[in-house]
Amino acid sequence: MRAGPPATLGEREDGRIEGHEQSEGRERPIDRPERATAAYPMTETADTQPGWFSSEELESVRGRMPVLYVQAVPVRVDESGAVTHVGLLMRAGSDGSFNRSVVSGRVLYHERVRDALLRHLEKDLGPVALPRIPSSPQPFTVAEYFPTPGITPFHDTRQHAVAMAYIVPVSGDCQPRQDALDLVWFTPDEATGPEVREEMQGGQGVLVRQALAFVGHAP
Amino acid sequence: MRAGPPATLGEREDGRIEGHEQSEGRERPIDRPERATAAYPMTETADTQPGWFSSEELESVRGRMPVLYVQAVPVRVDESGAVTHVGLLMRAGSDGSFNRSVVSGRVLYHERVRDALLRHLEKDLGPVALPRIPSSPQPFTVAEYFPTPGITPFHDTRQHAVAMAYIVPVSGDCQPRQDALDLVWFTPDEATGPEVREEMQGGQGVLVRQALAFVGHAP
Amino acid sequence: MRAGPPATLGEREDGRIEGHEQSEGRERPIDRPERATAAYPMTETADTQPGWFSSEELESVRGRMPVLYVQAVPVRVDESGAVTHVGLLMRAGSDGSFNRSVVSGRVLYHERVRDALLRHLEKDLGPVALPRIPSSPQPFTVAEYFPTPGITPFHDTRQHAVAMAYIVPVSGDCQPRQDALDLVWFTPDEATGPEVREEMQGGQGVLVRQALAFVGHAP
Amino acid sequence: MRAGPPATLGEREDGRIEGHEQSEGRERPIDRPERATAAYPMTETADTQPGWFSSEELESVRGRMPVLYVQAVPVRVDESGAVTHVGLLMRAGSDGSFNRSVVSGRVLYHERVRDALLRHLEKDLGPVALPRIPSSPQPFTVAEYFPTPGITPFHDTRQHAVAMAYIVPVSGDCQPRQDALDLVWFTPDEATGPEVREEMQGGQGVLVRQALAFVGHAP
Repeated sequence: MRAGPPATLGEREDGRIEGHEQSEGRERPIDRPERATAAYPMTETADTQPGWFSSEELESVRGRMPVLYVQAVPVRVDESGAVTHVGLLMRAGSDGSFNRSVVSGRVLYHERVRDALLRHLEKDLGPVALPRIPSSPQPFTVAEYFPTPGITPFHDTRQHAVAMAYIVPVSGDCQPRQDALDLVWFTPDEATGPEVREEMQGGQGVLVRQALAFVGHAP
Repeated sequence: MRAGPPATLGEREDGRIEGHEQSEGRERPIDRPERATAAYPMTETADTQPGWFSSEELESVRGRMPVLYVQAVPVRVDESGAVTHVGLLMRAGSDGSFNRSVVSGRVLYHERVRDALLRHLEKDLGPVALPRIPSSPQPFTVAEYFPTPGITPFHDTRQHAVAMAYIVPVSGDCQPRQDALDLVWFTPDEATGPEVREEMQGGQGVLVRQALAFVGHAP
Repeated sequence: MRAGPPATLGEREDGRIEGHEQSEGRERPIDRPERATAAYPMTETADTQPGWFSSEELESVRGRMPVLYVQAVPVRVDESGAVTHVGLLMRAGSDGSFNRSVVSGRVLYHERVRDALLRHLEKDLGPVALPRIPSSPQPFTVAEYFPTPGITPFHDTRQHAVAMAYIVPVSGDCQPRQDALDLVWFTPDEATGPEVREEMQGGQGVLVRQALAFVGHAP
Repeated sequence: MRAGPPATLGEREDGRIEGHEQSEGRERPIDRPERATAAYPMTETADTQPGWFSSEELESVRGRMPVLYVQAVPVRVDESGAVTHVGLLMRAGSDGSFNRSVVSGRVLYHERVRDALLRHLEKDLGPVALPRIPSSPQPFTVAEYFPTPGITPFHDTRQHAVAMAYIVPVSGDCQPRQDALDLVWFTPDEATGPEVREEMQGGQGVLVRQALAFVGHAP
């Protein structure tokens, strides 16, 4: 349905999760906070239950306020914590092209940032990836994706998204799910090289280099 | 109009700015991004022009997705950058009580985080406060305000707000405007003392102590 | 031999490691860098081989330049990365008193900061503690210990030490070695409470609270 | 006297400051801490009074323990805090070559990190540069310079130096002093371009790109 440039921050998948199964755009009941008995209730259920917005509502909101995202740069580390590899997802665009990306996704209503990180990492890397979510909420950077290109290095045709970005060591076995075709591990040199750069869109290549700079590599 | 507990993150003022002057809840035209010729168009006009959401729409969105905020802890620093004082706003609650708070406000659609910081600091501290917005987008912490208390130290009865928090040295003359009655400068010891703690709500006292910890003080 | 107040940053142990086995204060051969075939050669051997300075030399240097340390606050985290417990070492002072402390130690010549962290964590927590050294060299704070009290919250009678401080999740079994009597895990509330505060010296209680503030807790 | 490759971290100047005026390598009196009535006594006097080490002593220490440095990347910022320019010093090497560098220098005994930053900025940029020293001691990175190349991106032929690196907005007029020939302001694009890269040694070009990554630019 969405022609034009592929969405930088995983639009199709996100949209499907949150609105696809709804038939008549019905609203989430207004008493949501009261129903939430656990602290972060969406973590396990977000992938299967009807979303909080209909597709139309989400589109409408996206044109009028910034949408909060988390982004995770998966890395392999050695015993001393030094980054040896960066993991990038390979996705197929609707036009047959391929692109690489980090793990991204929305923070849902009443969800903690760290639970959103865990949920999206499990969704994209599978259930046994063993991600080590950072203990501090301080992101290494905040990436601001604007629908208008050129304001920041980040660009999303569809929305104004503000992504808190984290570096997440992953020690387990990664099994990409859903619409990600593959996860490939690159050395820091490969990840900052021209070939990989060309396969990343919307500034995600910049984000990867910012992440590598932050862990002490030459970006 | 809003009975019940006072809003932690400056509800009344925010709501007024964004929706009060609209008479029939009309939507912002859909072509907004294209009209935006400057990089951050809302900075100067947000206080006077009709908002993007009607009050009803904003309430509806607030019950269904996290709302992105910035918070600024204003500080006085000496020549070496060491924090000598923390500035807290004094506001009157609708029930006649007083409370102290840091500078807070929403990030608007198509607005950079640093422009939101600047806008809210000017709004709360006046036009000659000379705030020094940080050069890095990395916040010192991310404060997650949930409508359900106890999930984090932060709580907002009205919404799920995610606030990127920054420490902002201010060197000019501060003239609180709008609904802030006063700005008072406290030494780090005073700001973490029991008296000031009691006058801060929704976890803002925690945020102030986290800020002081981050600049090297005993929190 | 060292009367007076116990050293904040693990003096006795450090001194012993680096100088005890030397009989005549002999200098390390000048060609050290060339002999170092691995990138970080001291990691495994620092505990047993003669140090680079004699005790007398180290004392002399300590009175004339700042000494670089690392400090690690060991934490237990849950699946989402949230800190559930802080680990504090219990040590006996030479005067029979007890005190609690985080993991601390010097960075040696030609040793990376991350290798110094790993070495000191293994030394204090044993070989199967499985510490997760941070991937970024950015510390959560820098604690400056001065021999003169009151300049910062940190104080060391013996030296001017500058410690880069990190929060280190530990997932394995901890077996304190050497002069640490025990490692005790405290909840964040316990770790910031008055009892534990009184048992920490030289500002280490401040450091623990700064660490907890940084991971999102009320300090 | 120092043939071979120019020192990365400002050796000649530093060495002169600390040892040049001493005629017989006499030691600093042992009661130094007690004499220090002010919190950071060296700030004003370090450039003129005899240093704490003789040149020979300093060389000896440099071969046996890491030496603590601060590095400051001077930047110009706009009203919103966004970095518009990076300032690089131009120095002449002893062999007639030129190289560009950021502001660097040792932290002296009993000197706070923020005072060392201020002192070195004043020394290199003059008395009216108006640097804004960060309020937090948290550096944006820690650059580890090893005498052995290849361990990190940073290299110093002369020593193992550990530099806490900060981004420092400078709003005043810069008048380079001492052995710096000039200070030139570059746009972020220029500062990361190939020409400037080639003129920076020992990994300082990497440090500049890490700094730009940290403030949100494409490195």
